[in-house]
Amino acid sequence: MSGTIYVINPNSTVAVTDGIDRACAPLRLAGGPKIECLTLAEGPPGIQTQHDVDGVVAPLLRVVGELEPKAAAFVIACFSDPGLHSARETTRKPVLGIMESGILTALTLGQRFGVIAILQGSIPRHLRMINGMGLASRLAGERAVGLPVVELADEAKTAHRMTEVGRALAADGANAIVMGCAGMAQYRERVEQAAGVPVVEPTQAAVFMAIGRVQLGW
Amino acid sequence: MSGTIYVINPNSTVAVTDGIDRACAPLRLAGGPKIECLTLAEGPPGIQTQHDVDGVVAPLLRVVGELEPKAAAFVIACFSDPGLHSARETTRKPVLGIMESGILTALTLGQRFGVIAILQGSIPRHLRMINGMGLASRLAGERAVGLPVVELADEAKTAHRMTEVGRALAADGANAIVMGCAGMAQYRERVEQAAGVPVVEPTQAAVFMAIGRVQLGW
Amino acid sequence: MSGTIYVINPNSTVAVTDGIDRACAPLRLAGGPKIECLTLAEGPPGIQTQHDVDGVVAPLLRVVGELEPKAAAFVIACFSDPGLHSARETTRKPVLGIMESGILTALTLGQRFGVIAILQGSIPRHLRMINGMGLASRLAGERAVGLPVVELADEAKTAHRMTEVGRALAADGANAIVMGCAGMAQYRERVEQAAGVPVVEPTQAAVFMAIGRVQLGW
Amino acid sequence: MSGTIYVINPNSTVAVTDGIDRACAPLRLAGGPKIECLTLAEGPPGIQTQHDVDGVVAPLLRVVGELEPKAAAFVIACFSDPGLHSARETTRKPVLGIMESGILTALTLGQRFGVIAILQGSIPRHLRMINGMGLASRLAGERAVGLPVVELADEAKTAHRMTEVGRALAADGANAIVMGCAGMAQYRERVEQAAGVPVVEPTQAAVFMAIGRVQLGW
Amino acid sequence: MSGTIYVINPNSTVAVTDGIDRACAPLRLAGGPKIECLTLAEGPPGIQTQHDVDGVVAPLLRVVGELEPKAAAFVIACFSDPGLHSARETTRKPVLGIMESGILTALTLGQRFGVIAILQGSIPRHLRMINGMGLASRLAGERAVGLPVVELADEAKTAHRMTEVGRALAADGANAIVMGCAGMAQYRERVEQAAGVPVVEPTQAAVFMAIGRVQLGW
Amino acid sequence: MSGTIYVINPNSTVAVTDGIDRACAPLRLAGGPKIECLTLAEGPPGIQTQHDVDGVVAPLLRVVGELEPKAAAFVIACFSDPGLHSARETTRKPVLGIMESGILTALTLGQRFGVIAILQGSIPRHLRMINGMGLASRLAGERAVGLPVVELADEAKTAHRMTEVGRALAADGANAIVMGCAGMAQYRERVEQAAGVPVVEPTQAAVFMAIGRVQLGW
Repeated sequence: MSGTIYVINPNSTVAVTDGIDRACAPLRLAGGPKIECLTLAEGPPGIQTQHDVDGVVAPLLRVVGELEPKAAAFVIACFSDPGLHSARETTRKPVLGIMESGILTALTLGQRFGVIAILQGSIPRHLRMINGMGLASRLAGERAVGLPVVELADEAKTAHRMTEVGRALAADGANAIVMGCAGMAQYRERVEQAAGVPVVEPTQAAVFMAIGRVQLGW
Repeated sequence: MSGTIYVINPNSTVAVTDGIDRACAPLRLAGGPKIECLTLAEGPPGIQTQHDVDGVVAPLLRVVGELEPKAAAFVIACFSDPGLHSARETTRKPVLGIMESGILTALTLGQRFGVIAILQGSIPRHLRMINGMGLASRLAGERAVGLPVVELADEAKTAHRMTEVGRALAADGANAIVMGCAGMAQYRERVEQAAGVPVVEPTQAAVFMAIGRVQLGW
Repeated sequence: MSGTIYVINPNSTVAVTDGIDRACAPLRLAGGPKIECLTLAEGPPGIQTQHDVDGVVAPLLRVVGELEPKAAAFVIACFSDPGLHSARETTRKPVLGIMESGILTALTLGQRFGVIAILQGSIPRHLRMINGMGLASRLAGERAVGLPVVELADEAKTAHRMTEVGRALAADGANAIVMGCAGMAQYRERVEQAAGVPVVEPTQAAVFMAIGRVQLGW
Repeated sequence: MSGTIYVINPNSTVAVTDGIDRACAPLRLAGGPKIECLTLAEGPPGIQTQHDVDGVVAPLLRVVGELEPKAAAFVIACFSDPGLHSARETTRKPVLGIMESGILTALTLGQRFGVIAILQGSIPRHLRMINGMGLASRLAGERAVGLPVVELADEAKTAHRMTEVGRALAADGANAIVMGCAGMAQYRERVEQAAGVPVVEPTQAAVFMAIGRVQLGW
Repeated sequence: MSGTIYVINPNSTVAVTDGIDRACAPLRLAGGPKIECLTLAEGPPGIQTQHDVDGVVAPLLRVVGELEPKAAAFVIACFSDPGLHSARETTRKPVLGIMESGILTALTLGQRFGVIAILQGSIPRHLRMINGMGLASRLAGERAVGLPVVELADEAKTAHRMTEVGRALAADGANAIVMGCAGMAQYRERVEQAAGVPVVEPTQAAVFMAIGRVQLGW
Repeated sequence: MSGTIYVINPNSTVAVTDGIDRACAPLRLAGGPKIECLTLAEGPPGIQTQHDVDGVVAPLLRVVGELEPKAAAFVIACFSDPGLHSARETTRKPVLGIMESGILTALTLGQRFGVIAILQGSIPRHLRMINGMGLASRLAGERAVGLPVVELADEAKTAHRMTEVGRALAADGANAIVMGCAGMAQYRERVEQAAGVPVVEPTQAAVFMAIGRVQLGW
């Protein structure tokens, strides 16, 4: 029950890790496990393709292996859950992926969920994984923000597109929405306001599932 | 973020509530929400039929209404999730059901899950709910302990049957098992040992999901 | 084979029961079972939420219990099928729900069915039940009339919205449509004309399934 | 509302038609439609293969066309529903198939249904159709009687195998059973007794669905 | 391994067979099986209804039977796969249907597939078959060209509508498209260009699956 | 249309590549593409875990990149389809995986398919992928040979276990079987004989799908 929950951002962009770290603040409980957020130096600046997903598995597993003795649990903080099943074979400590945890949490918030992807090109990859989870009948739809990377740094523009996409998903019949990315917790409330349905920030969802597992020793 | 998580046992058997209370111990964190376990006085001694399930909804909602001002969240601690969707309409505080939370947690532990029911007659009701969750393709099977209520008090006998059922579910292809009942956390580890796959105690799963939701203010 | 088919309207609005009663006329056959339509006095004026659904189960089961000796079968005439599975445990006489019977009948009329809900807020509840029936792959869509209750009394306005929704469902790919409400048989033909696909009035569907079961003694 | 329900046995074995005719007796109501059972002279003695199924469509449609002016509805009394969708294009009168109607009726009697096939070789064909109905998640299993045709004439032997298969399906988790054949209504009760779950005779199920449709003019 | 692959066009329009024949050219390999395209003289000019589908089975099986001694494999070149399962019972040589082969091929080209139907009225029939294949969760949508038969002869008009439909399917989320017809290979590239996703010509897909089976002797 | 189909064995065991190479013989057609089988030197001796699967992606993509200019298509010859979706992003030439191609081919041979895994531990990984393909309703079951690696070299022992497993899958209801491994084509016919249903060797299935794609220039 001692040990640290390591939240690993598998892309190399420290600003993303910082956003994740801030999002963990309310989950750092006196008496609960320590939560530490890391950047995978070997990762690409952003994970955009299946190639990127597969490419970070090896360095990610290396990090998991190194941290293992001090770890209570691991969270893989990329919405494609890279290396999730590999990492589960590598360590007996709990390993949570933010896509899996985010979507499962959304299932407790509404009958059909929507997903906000950053890129159009990620949607087929996500749908393949949602089918793999057996959840096609719970999906209302997935839509992309579709901004070029440089424009994602513009908070006003990003907030505007995210709330637009959130509203569109609600119109598609989504009763809950999952943000399909890590490090964007600052937009959660605005999307929730705009869409009128609960919005799940998936890294937070994964971290609280990890805390529970650590406390119970499963 | 202040307030108490109320874990409501909708049957009137205090011994079950006591078991639930002990199971919450590792989830009571210094900096986290208070967790209080209650017995629904108006409930039947055990919830065995759809009639029982439907019958506890009204008193349960009454209790939810009364506790609402002091509540941070609610957990309904019966594996048929009585009144879950009604309660979600009654309060804007998080409401978690142990069936839903237990099964969703199992999905992070293995590709196919099995369920240990207490009674054979509960299986069709559970399957209806599992279908309603859209999870038929993740289910390996459900099997019943099938002991008469009086014999459930006999710990050795119950442990024996539970481990037998756990082993049978693993042979059916279950990679994770959910205990389909509340208040039986004491058997979790023995079933896990016997079956050789992770076993989810569903009340604990629901409580940790509630803690996360409370901390995040969702 | 003697005995009466009791069609129970679980809301307390007698005008709805009257509409149901008129819809039963063509199913009252010489030599067939008697059909009697009742209003559940304890019900709310309309069933709009899961809370309403759960709330009518107890008085409904009481009525079922009282009528049991004289009953040939029961029809629960509310599109959320309140207490359906409870009632089936309470009596060995056939119990049919209008949602289940209406949707199953629609499956004989087209590959994909649409549902006309009265209220937007009922759609997630219906989808949960349609998933529970395992029928997600047969659903073309569900859309709401969305009129406030007072305007539902205005027949012209209601007919106009119902036919609009019917047409929209046909455009969604519905090859058959189920009216997601009881007591609105008078609109059936107009929707069918407008949408150009068969339209099922679900109470009639449930009553004829009940007649068959009564005649056969199943 | 005038006119006759024609129940067409697409095999040429008159003894089967006679069994169907006897099974219709309780559904012949004073004020209801006339029910007439016919044998398709051009059919094979039994329908055992997809080839047989496809082969009877042309003569069946010819009979449907000839009877159309006098018909209120048609029932195709073979468990592979030969020509069902073709016949629905040929006439605007209701056309019910016994597989479709029998299975839909079973869905009102239990969460999971089982099917008793006569021949092992028919099972893949039936499963293809059950998938086509979108009902794979409601199926508990299908098992074959597996007696050679000559032995099916031996009532004791057939009853024995049917009850054995019914019991096996209940053990597979079937909460309701559909007899996967026409003209064997005489075994229904014995299978129900043996299996301990409701058993649907599919021709009767289709005929009562037809009566309802005729009375309502859909 | 000797013998001919017979590609049977079950409609009587020789121009369609000619289009199929041209499409087979790249699959006629020096060392591979001979490929011969035939017109079913008894077929209707086009297969537009389930009635048409069922109606060609008997003459088709007759042709299959006659060619059997010289055949290496059969391809049924109509997008409703008429007689596919019957033909598989009739001969032990491989029998491929263009709908089945075309859709399975599309599954290797994208997560979700779309279908271009010629007629609106064929869509429910195709969906019934796609459900029967268990593939509802992979389908993005099906849309019809919807031109009257005489206008299909106008290549410019047909190309225009086909590319419009292809674009619409891509917007529906299709990552690959199947042409829901035989004999229109000449439009494949234009649709692919317009839609920006791979497009499968289903007869070619079926023929190459047949070649493989012939070479391997399965 | 010129160029070579590269069949890459992602494990480093040359004997497996040799078996694959022999299995390609009947698919090397005069006039067809050249087929060359390669061993991935960096791969582990066998691919047994998700870790192994993820680990070979990087070297595999490197090989794909190097061969790209000379390649007509690629086949990834490991039943977990490592790097399949990554490789499809890396090259515009066709990339086929043997799991995907083998299972899709089995769907043309029977309503339900079974899979023969080498190791018990691979079954959850395969099921995750089969769910991802949307094919859970077509799966009859998967069973493992379960021999330790050293015993797999003993042909008699392996043949014995494979035929046993094949028979068990047929009893589970499989109408077609896929061999869940590469390089074991020599056992195909024996399993087919024993099980009495068609057996797919998945590398051969993928290679013939690749040939078709190459010839057509898709």
